[in-house]
Amino acid sequence: MRKVAVIGIGQTKVTENWEKSFRELAGDAILAALQDANLTTADAFFIGNMMSSNANHQQNIGAYITDWIGSRGAESIRVESACSSGSAAFRAAVLAVASGEINIAVAAAVEKMTDSPGAETTAYLATAASADWEVEQGVSFVALNALLMQRYMHEYKWEHEHFANFSINAHQNAINNPYAMFHMPISKQRFDHSPIICDPITLLDASPIGDGAAAVVIIPSESAFLSTNQSPITVIGSAAASDTIAVHDRKDPLWLSAAEASAKKAYSQAGIKQQDIDLFEYHDAFTIMASLSLEACGFVERGQSPKLAIENEITINGRIPVATMGGLKARGHPVGATGMYQLIEIVQQLRGIAGNNQVPEAVYGMAQNIGGSGSNIITHILTNAKYP
Amino acid sequence: MRKVAVIGIGQTKVTENWEKSFRELAGDAILAALQDANLTTADAFFIGNMMSSNANHQQNIGAYITDWIGSRGAESIRVESACSSGSAAFRAAVLAVASGEINIAVAAAVEKMTDSPGAETTAYLATAASADWEVEQGVSFVALNALLMQRYMHEYKWEHEHFANFSINAHQNAINNPYAMFHMPISKQRFDHSPIICDPITLLDASPIGDGAAAVVIIPSESAFLSTNQSPITVIGSAAASDTIAVHDRKDPLWLSAAEASAKKAYSQAGIKQQDIDLFEYHDAFTIMASLSLEACGFVERGQSPKLAIENEITINGRIPVATMGGLKARGHPVGATGMYQLIEIVQQLRGIAGNNQVPEAVYGMAQNIGGSGSNIITHILTNAKYP
Repeated sequence: MRKVAVIGIGQTKVTENWEKSFRELAGDAILAALQDANLTTADAFFIGNMMSSNANHQQNIGAYITDWIGSRGAESIRVESACSSGSAAFRAAVLAVASGEINIAVAAAVEKMTDSPGAETTAYLATAASADWEVEQGVSFVALNALLMQRYMHEYKWEHEHFANFSINAHQNAINNPYAMFHMPISKQRFDHSPIICDPITLLDASPIGDGAAAVVIIPSESAFLSTNQSPITVIGSAAASDTIAVHDRKDPLWLSAAEASAKKAYSQAGIKQQDIDLFEYHDAFTIMASLSLEACGFVERGQSPKLAIENEITINGRIPVATMGGLKARGHPVGATGMYQLIEIVQQLRGIAGNNQVPEAVYGMAQNIGGSGSNIITHILTNAKYP
Repeated sequence: MRKVAVIGIGQTKVTENWEKSFRELAGDAILAALQDANLTTADAFFIGNMMSSNANHQQNIGAYITDWIGSRGAESIRVESACSSGSAAFRAAVLAVASGEINIAVAAAVEKMTDSPGAETTAYLATAASADWEVEQGVSFVALNALLMQRYMHEYKWEHEHFANFSINAHQNAINNPYAMFHMPISKQRFDHSPIICDPITLLDASPIGDGAAAVVIIPSESAFLSTNQSPITVIGSAAASDTIAVHDRKDPLWLSAAEASAKKAYSQAGIKQQDIDLFEYHDAFTIMASLSLEACGFVERGQSPKLAIENEITINGRIPVATMGGLKARGHPVGATGMYQLIEIVQQLRGIAGNNQVPEAVYGMAQNIGGSGSNIITHILTNAKYP
């Protein structure tokens, strides 16, 4: 398998975007990524998206988007794994270029959610869980996460206030990210008095949905170091794993086994240890998911994630910086596009262009994108070190 | 890029299947394919599907299906390109194994359509066209095809009756296929008096939708010839191309440029000419699509497809056998799964197990799967000749 590198990135601001259509959003991100790579088109496009069939009455978005951006004729398909669709599209592009069959690939991801009424969006999001065994019983995604958080707090003796720093850190980092949804710091006091959505989850435990698109250009490493004016960022770990679709089927609902499996595989592919990771773009859809990810990937022992947050080890200058551009919590969570935003933020850090949020001397960045309630998890490790 | 081969196939009968759920259908096909390959699981699963989010309120079907079949933990994603989702999943699996990253892949495709009311299904199918520029104007898929057929008949001076043999041949071949929806021969007289659906398209020009699932097992060719009791069928051409999403944007709506581009690329990869193809599983969703495919792929000159049918050149013993197990017209068209059925039928022919429908001395089989109104087309060529 030949190594591949990212040589272009593009993204739109996550927001309630009433001014742009689904295809305009996708096009803006892809054209920005191509321009960043000094290219005008690609051989193949891999588009991550979760809910266009429901929210936008549009499928076949591969052809739909390549047509729009003036790349008619190019191969173009959609990849879907619910909330991890963005990184699934990235991985599909990585494999296609690695195979030798495709030389220039665009991996893009897009979600346009605010055109639909909120109750409908809740139903669309629930299609990531088991329709028969979970949704049919009336459970929503926030409810599934609330059950997990309740159990976690009971099991490890944490209070709700102990999760505050996950959200405070994310909001702090988003201030310097022009593509983030929120540019508003939050205080501990505000976190503690945030209204409950689904006990114990409050508004400030939860990430906001939004509209957004993000894209990267991927080419073989051997040509990346010759042909571009950008520093190529090499993909040295790419791994996916699944788990039961329904949370109640897991022997241990507080352990994200697909996060553990994909992270371990990615460390092994990269030839590094978890301790070598300089920053971690985790999937903080809820503070409980942030906690479970850190534990499953080996950054802290089981049940101790809130301690890591309380001790400020997750900030830019901490032991393991997370959500360095705002994370899902404050950059926003345009569901099927989120994974691509995470990967772009890793590239920004490894290029050294993260400004006030720059993680000093970052060499290895890891992004982990969680689909469903942990049922489909994809982990990538990228580096600015020269490979092979 | 390492060569890959198919070593297992499995399919369910295309029908209105009220007895099986979405996941059972998929599971039945995948487990049959694994059993055929003498395996119990795979490293990764690539699932083609168009409309589960609408018709089955279920996304994230990668994890959903691997969970059901007892392959929890395995990588599993969904691939979608409307009606060509089946072959898109096949191609994703081919690239993944070719990359060296995956050693055993299952490519599967599933569609469960009859649980939804007909009017809803028509709307779901229309998501393959442009939501803004076509569907918003009230056009359905059959209407788009009717416009094309009208124009084709005008341009090349054909009458409706001249398309009869496309459907007669498909129904004849389906009789011997236990997995086909229809086992009912049709006469010229019946074709000529078939009720109009959308002028000039009649009931017998159109393929029936249905429920179905199909799956194959793909491994590297070098191990395929060592490790199985089945004759490996090698993938020697795999190519995808797109076109405008809306038919009216094409300079020439009667030319499937994505069919031409993907077929030419596949011939070139395979190192063969169109004349070497022994059978062609084409995408006969409507007789007009059958005609346009034959022309774009070079089997007959422009505007002359009906002549090929009238002269019986498309039967099992004709110059270019098509729809050898019934095609979309009579095997049935479970939309996102159709492409995988086509590929399985190629494998049956190349293994020499097609029974009364066996194409004599078949060495090269081609399958072409059309998404939307020709906007996303994927062409594969397989052989039973020993490769590399």
